[in-house]
Amino acid sequence: MTIDALTALIAHIGSLDATAIEQAEARQLQLTKPTGSLGRLEEIAVQLAGITGKVQPSVQRKAVVVMAADHGVTAERVSAYPADVTPQMVLNFLTHGAAINALAGQAQADVTVVDIGVAVELDHPQLLQRKVKAGTANMAQGPAMSREEAIQAIMIGVEVLESLADHGLDLVATGEMGIGNTTAASAITATLLECAVERVTGHGTGIDAEQFKHKVAVIEQALDRNQPDKADALDVLAKVGGLEIAGLVGVILAAAAHRIPVVLDGFISSSAALVAVALAPATRNYLFAGHMSVERGHQLILEKLALLPLLQLNLRLGEGTGAALAMHVIEGAVRTHNEMATFAEAGVSDRDA
Amino acid sequence: MTIDALTALIAHIGSLDATAIEQAEARQLQLTKPTGSLGRLEEIAVQLAGITGKVQPSVQRKAVVVMAADHGVTAERVSAYPADVTPQMVLNFLTHGAAINALAGQAQADVTVVDIGVAVELDHPQLLQRKVKAGTANMAQGPAMSREEAIQAIMIGVEVLESLADHGLDLVATGEMGIGNTTAASAITATLLECAVERVTGHGTGIDAEQFKHKVAVIEQALDRNQPDKADALDVLAKVGGLEIAGLVGVILAAAAHRIPVVLDGFISSSAALVAVALAPATRNYLFAGHMSVERGHQLILEKLALLPLLQLNLRLGEGTGAALAMHVIEGAVRTHNEMATFAEAGVSDRDA
Repeated sequence: MTIDALTALIAHIGSLDATAIEQAEARQLQLTKPTGSLGRLEEIAVQLAGITGKVQPSVQRKAVVVMAADHGVTAERVSAYPADVTPQMVLNFLTHGAAINALAGQAQADVTVVDIGVAVELDHPQLLQRKVKAGTANMAQGPAMSREEAIQAIMIGVEVLESLADHGLDLVATGEMGIGNTTAASAITATLLECAVERVTGHGTGIDAEQFKHKVAVIEQALDRNQPDKADALDVLAKVGGLEIAGLVGVILAAAAHRIPVVLDGFISSSAALVAVALAPATRNYLFAGHMSVERGHQLILEKLALLPLLQLNLRLGEGTGAALAMHVIEGAVRTHNEMATFAEAGVSDRDA
Repeated sequence: MTIDALTALIAHIGSLDATAIEQAEARQLQLTKPTGSLGRLEEIAVQLAGITGKVQPSVQRKAVVVMAADHGVTAERVSAYPADVTPQMVLNFLTHGAAINALAGQAQADVTVVDIGVAVELDHPQLLQRKVKAGTANMAQGPAMSREEAIQAIMIGVEVLESLADHGLDLVATGEMGIGNTTAASAITATLLECAVERVTGHGTGIDAEQFKHKVAVIEQALDRNQPDKADALDVLAKVGGLEIAGLVGVILAAAAHRIPVVLDGFISSSAALVAVALAPATRNYLFAGHMSVERGHQLILEKLALLPLLQLNLRLGEGTGAALAMHVIEGAVRTHNEMATFAEAGVSDRDA
């Protein structure tokens, strides 16, 4: 049943609104500045017009969705941090002590924290409890999830996004928490980009050179053991992905279907975008790359998706932090587009004819 | 007299507070994130601690100073826009129709507009009238200003900054308006960086290839005619600079003397920073480069000052727009630094020992 719902959702993802784009471009030419002098802000405003179908779009109502889950592959000691940190950080999000709380607060974005697969039981009134299972299985030994579990996790992301959209949503940022999830993101990326594991593997939260070699070997073993089919993104997601990554695939697809722009965070979020675009190529036009992470695989994903990062600040934290910070750039694009006077309104001479 | 006041101000510009830096670095290590994972945000927070002497600095009270002036060199037709646009845009700032109004509003920064040398009389209750003269002389024919006029303009910048500081100021952005001022900025930059004019000359508000050649020739003529002394930054500023650039030199020096961080906008603002740092090298540590402009000379200045831009969005508008937008990054650095929980507070495990 859920695969039918997913197929129906994907069928809803359309192309950008060409008329709104044309009108937004025309508006940009009338604003009191040399043509093109606001650079990428102008492009962002025009893209938002295309996404929303509104010549003067709004980004008033903002949200960050943080999907949290554990990874069986941490049994292979691929991370610098113990797996306990996943639930500890989820509670830190809920008590407003994490970086994403500070940055979402600054951006006036609501934070929705979803337990989509944390290994232990968590109880907090603000936590959205949507556990598919208590962490993935160890992908070095077998598939991380079944195909059904992956689809179930995607549909949870869809549900979360649609619930936010029901209350009004202009811009959504993707965030995640899951010790071990750069390992899953690297496995997905190596498969879908068809490149060597070590080219898309980084140092995660901070492993050394020897641990890095081990991480690459574990990912290679997982790919060898599971043989994910690169032509079938759902197969890749299920076998070597993560529950939080699958949840973000759902968030991204549903946002595109509802014509809501998405700001991607770093490597993990972008690996979810890679899966989403593989499932529904039109999704790509609804995406903004919030920043360029230090994680090596991230740049290759952004090149593949032809997305230019809005920020380059050497971030590698995840949680949605880079995406939340990039919301200010997007808001700046919208504010200049909507609030500036035209040459005629301001009585300013246009360039020498 | 004013040169004595300037000398006294420069003597007040000290080094960063090493104790506050050390304590801010120690705080960063305790926050609930992998060490270094917030990248440049961590560096910014630590630098702000060094600037302000506060381990947990604030950037609550923000201002953009927009200095406006005309340039006699526009008689040589170096700009794509007529000189009338300078006063027209000043009025646009005052009626909140310009890009800087939208972006400063977003950053919750006050905008102070100063007529430091617009060619025509302007009357508006919100305009700070501090005209040194009605535009510079044509530097292609002789010095743009006398040395006394340049110092007078610098001291106006000092006065403006100190007046803002008296009312409370945590962060200041530099902005400017002046048709023809990329020509002056290129002349300053070529002299102080000792490089060919065409390497530091761009397309300003939008000139074509032939006009570009002409602009380079005009700047070369100005340098040839005036022979500015590269070892004497005041001489360079007076002979081939601009009144608004001189005003920003004063803003920058005074901010550094009062331990207030400065966010530079693009090429024009950075040419003012180049002069300020030549006059008082310690000033450099109080500066943040808001963004990397499309103007070619900008990158060379930032390299010389060893400043990494916070944003790269292909802006080339000036007014302080890139600096205002970059304030969000600086605020993000402060918010994470001040608001995040420590490992101990949140009960989160630090990395495997």
